[in-house]
Amino acid sequence: MLGFMNDVAFAETQRAREVVFFSRSRNRLWKKGESSGHVLKVRDIRVDCDADSLLIRVDPIGPGVCHEGYRSCFFRSMASDGATEVIAQRTFDPEKIYAQETKDQETRR
Amino acid sequence: MLGFMNDVAFAETQRAREVVFFSRSRNRLWKKGESSGHVLKVRDIRVDCDADSLLIRVDPIGPGVCHEGYRSCFFRSMASDGATEVIAQRTFDPEKIYAQETKDQETRR
Repeated sequence: MLGFMNDVAFAETQRAREVVFFSRSRNRLWKKGESSGHVLKVRDIRVDCDADSLLIRVDPIGPGVCHEGYRSCFFRSMASDGATEVIAQRTFDPEKIYAQETKDQETRR
Repeated sequence: MLGFMNDVAFAETQRAREVVFFSRSRNRLWKKGESSGHVLKVRDIRVDCDADSLLIRVDPIGPGVCHEGYRSCFFRSMASDGATEVIAQRTFDPEKIYAQETKDQETRR
C-alpha cells in the first residue's frame, strides 16, 4: 500500500515499529489497523536517493492489508486499453472486519 | 522508484509501454532513461483500491534504475534511531552514464 506520513507519523512508526500514516482527508494520525487489527509490523525501512520516499518492509498481521478485503491494495491489473481486471482473491470479508461506521472512516482517508 | 504521473505521462506510458513521469520541478514530461538509456519497460500495471496509485512492474534496461548508480533508489536502510546505512553496491558509475549537465537535470526532478 502507499500512504502519506508527516514527521509525527514517521516518529510514531519508528517508536512503535508499527506503521502509522497521516490522513490528510481526516487531518489526523492514522495507524494502519486501528479498526481492523491488521497492523503492519516494521521489518525494515529503506530511504530513497533523494530522501523523500520510504520503502517500509513489513510483517502484515491478519489475512490482508486492503480495506476491500484483499491481501494487497493493488488487486487490479490494468490493460493497455485502460480496462481493469481483479487479479486476486478476497482473503477476508471486509463487512465482518470493519463495522460500517469505521469502514466509512477507513475509506475516506 | 517512486514518481509522479499526470494524465499525459500516464497516457504516454500506456502508449509506449515505457515509463514516463511528469517532473513537477521541471514542469515537463520526464521519460525515465531519457539521458541514461535506463528505460523501464512496462510488464504490467496494477491499480490500488482507491485508484490513486499505480504499481508498475517493469523490466529495467541497464545495470540500475537510480541516478546514484544503484540498481534501486532504495539503497539505504534506516535504523530505529534514524541512522542510515548503504546496503547495496553500486552497479554502475553515474559519472560515466550521465554527462554532468544532464545529471544535474536528473537530480532536480
